[in-house]
Amino acid sequence: MVGLNVISTPIVIVNFKTYIEGTGKKATDLARSAKKVSSETGVCFAVAPQFVDIPLIVNSVGIPVLAQHIDPFKPGSYTGHVLPEAVKEAGAVGTLINHSERRLRLADIDEALTRAREVGLATVVCTNNTTVSASAAALKPDMIAVEPPELIGTGIPVSKAKPEVVTSTVESVKKVNRDVVVLCGAGITNGEDVAAAIKLGTEGVLVASGIVKAKDPYKVMLEFAQAMIKH
Amino acid sequence: MVGLNVISTPIVIVNFKTYIEGTGKKATDLARSAKKVSSETGVCFAVAPQFVDIPLIVNSVGIPVLAQHIDPFKPGSYTGHVLPEAVKEAGAVGTLINHSERRLRLADIDEALTRAREVGLATVVCTNNTTVSASAAALKPDMIAVEPPELIGTGIPVSKAKPEVVTSTVESVKKVNRDVVVLCGAGITNGEDVAAAIKLGTEGVLVASGIVKAKDPYKVMLEFAQAMIKH
Amino acid sequence: MVGLNVISTPIVIVNFKTYIEGTGKKATDLARSAKKVSSETGVCFAVAPQFVDIPLIVNSVGIPVLAQHIDPFKPGSYTGHVLPEAVKEAGAVGTLINHSERRLRLADIDEALTRAREVGLATVVCTNNTTVSASAAALKPDMIAVEPPELIGTGIPVSKAKPEVVTSTVESVKKVNRDVVVLCGAGITNGEDVAAAIKLGTEGVLVASGIVKAKDPYKVMLEFAQAMIKH
Amino acid sequence: MVGLNVISTPIVIVNFKTYIEGTGKKATDLARSAKKVSSETGVCFAVAPQFVDIPLIVNSVGIPVLAQHIDPFKPGSYTGHVLPEAVKEAGAVGTLINHSERRLRLADIDEALTRAREVGLATVVCTNNTTVSASAAALKPDMIAVEPPELIGTGIPVSKAKPEVVTSTVESVKKVNRDVVVLCGAGITNGEDVAAAIKLGTEGVLVASGIVKAKDPYKVMLEFAQAMIKH
Repeated sequence: MVGLNVISTPIVIVNFKTYIEGTGKKATDLARSAKKVSSETGVCFAVAPQFVDIPLIVNSVGIPVLAQHIDPFKPGSYTGHVLPEAVKEAGAVGTLINHSERRLRLADIDEALTRAREVGLATVVCTNNTTVSASAAALKPDMIAVEPPELIGTGIPVSKAKPEVVTSTVESVKKVNRDVVVLCGAGITNGEDVAAAIKLGTEGVLVASGIVKAKDPYKVMLEFAQAMIKH
Repeated sequence: MVGLNVISTPIVIVNFKTYIEGTGKKATDLARSAKKVSSETGVCFAVAPQFVDIPLIVNSVGIPVLAQHIDPFKPGSYTGHVLPEAVKEAGAVGTLINHSERRLRLADIDEALTRAREVGLATVVCTNNTTVSASAAALKPDMIAVEPPELIGTGIPVSKAKPEVVTSTVESVKKVNRDVVVLCGAGITNGEDVAAAIKLGTEGVLVASGIVKAKDPYKVMLEFAQAMIKH
Repeated sequence: MVGLNVISTPIVIVNFKTYIEGTGKKATDLARSAKKVSSETGVCFAVAPQFVDIPLIVNSVGIPVLAQHIDPFKPGSYTGHVLPEAVKEAGAVGTLINHSERRLRLADIDEALTRAREVGLATVVCTNNTTVSASAAALKPDMIAVEPPELIGTGIPVSKAKPEVVTSTVESVKKVNRDVVVLCGAGITNGEDVAAAIKLGTEGVLVASGIVKAKDPYKVMLEFAQAMIKH
Repeated sequence: MVGLNVISTPIVIVNFKTYIEGTGKKATDLARSAKKVSSETGVCFAVAPQFVDIPLIVNSVGIPVLAQHIDPFKPGSYTGHVLPEAVKEAGAVGTLINHSERRLRLADIDEALTRAREVGLATVVCTNNTTVSASAAALKPDMIAVEPPELIGTGIPVSKAKPEVVTSTVESVKKVNRDVVVLCGAGITNGEDVAAAIKLGTEGVLVASGIVKAKDPYKVMLEFAQAMIKH
């Protein structure tokens, strides 16, 4: 995997979305908490802040940083878009692609993956079900994070509400391409949900509001990490 | 105008697009050259770099920085999008909206303008012809930059190839809303083009490849500034 | 107005959306009921069925038919899009543009209007608030239908819940362009709502579920027509 | 395959796009020519006209008709979109999905395929390269038509300019799902191109301008059919 030296599994990827609790100075604070938990437990944490918040976190926190999205473009006339080269030079080690809140056309996912490989960014393609996960696996991303959209932000954990989606995704992705790491997300809010995800065969979780909007994000992340270690 | 303390007219806005010559360290260098010309001539220059490049330029160069785009969203679940609050906290003083390479739906332009006003970002709405400029003026942006798309990146200056588009835009925008500053862009590459633009009634230019891809951007910007002063 | 010989005000435009009750044979039945009410009361009714249902309604019912959308294209390589010429040749007399469920980019609304005028289709631009309505008016459509999106499909009538949106839209549209006919929509379900809309200065209503999903669409349409006549 | 009683391989699918030569009355004429060739040669021809032209062709020509696109929606509030049920009731037997001029998001291709199966429409997913074709195969469409976008409309046939794309697509699609029929398209203009396509392992071609914009479409289609038979 690209960026393997800084990313390892099991992994917790924290998506800051455009939550106010994950914007600007608060984004740096959150990243610092994630870094602390990572140092204390040895579990890999990566953070996916907004584009403008990438540089400061990279430079001041020393945690693996992912972009939330890249555009499938080479350098050129694309005002208002996100160039893979720019994200890389800013210090990100990877990127989410095709999050349910930023879905891409099939051909653009393919091209975004190609561009990410060219500039050396690890890739996490988000998917919504088992079939789409198998389809995405054929495009050879580093990781696939399956997230049933109807559970995102609900606090109802995919690993408990739809365990069969997780297991069948792991199975069908591995059948297409054994090298792809499978994560799951949606509704993950505590250590138990994380333990369940790992038990179902994933190598980590993609989480947003469960951590970013928690009263004490540090405490929740610590619980996540401990659930991963125990398992 | 929002951000009036740092933005004044006549103005040169340099759009870095996703040109490799305007990415990362090179973006900072370009911004520094713009700052130098601005200091030497007193003409206002603002730069519109990629999102991830905003913070470093803000912190190290001290020139007015615009985002190339914002999304019409309030803080929330919008992975991979550009929150006005984040752009503001990163230090940008304004934003382009609806560039021809990042067109927005009408209702989203309206909402993006509302959000920009709420967080205190100056706004430059890009348009493609006289009718659309009048339509945009009704939405009360701070500035409108008319750019016939067919001339963008060609080196054929709008101010000479389509002077009637520029004059009719100035007229129709002012009729709707006198307070809106009108700029023009597309194909502007030298001082003569800039002088022509000002003569046609605009208060500045929006320029990209003419500066970013120039052999000596400093020299071109100096020529632009001098053309504005002379006029 | 283009198509003036078949469209007159006050008008009721019935949007069939992609409701199953407005698809295929049921679309023709609905159109027939609208035609009957129109003949009995003298009030103009127009229907906006799905694309594939346009020809049969045109040929068998004899009621003014609008497309729900057109694309801003000239004939060419645009697989899966809706060519104005094709809609016109199929017998439609006009088209909705920029419905809240099919929002367009500002430049594309302008171009779609230009194309509609070129082929001779009457135009109804949908808008979401007063400011956007004024902006749309500058593009010179034949009609503007203001519909606060949050009321669409709710049964809470815009003419009663947000009368100020309707009156301020009429005022601001007429200020930009007196020739534009203003309609309103969202939540209109009975004669009282229609009467309120007319009282607020509109010349008709755009309605969907209130008629299409009614138990007895004929009865509801008759009530609408009578409310318009009385007024 | 859904609609198998009317669709067989080898097949020629003629995409009318939004060419003026394939609009309205001319669309019916073209379909009639295709029908004639099909009757004379026994080779299956299907046509993909614009939405509004589907009903007349279905009713007057008696040739298998495909939509150029469907939206991934169930009946509901989707003004201006293309409901699979409506296309089916109008008499189409299938649909193109994800044409290069109407690309869809990955999750939407999956959902469009599900909806097509639910209503009984055969599906042809268009793709741009080998990797994307393998990815699409995992979604279980009836057919995949690979078309390198840079060759579409050029007259440079994919079967001769990029034979390796065709053969590797056939191989990789069949590896994922043997039941998927593979077609190719882009630049196909004469019988030789068709013969080459069949020799490379495809079971037919997707063609547009090569037929629709030909001086004598009947003659070109006859040549296509004969090339398929000979082979």
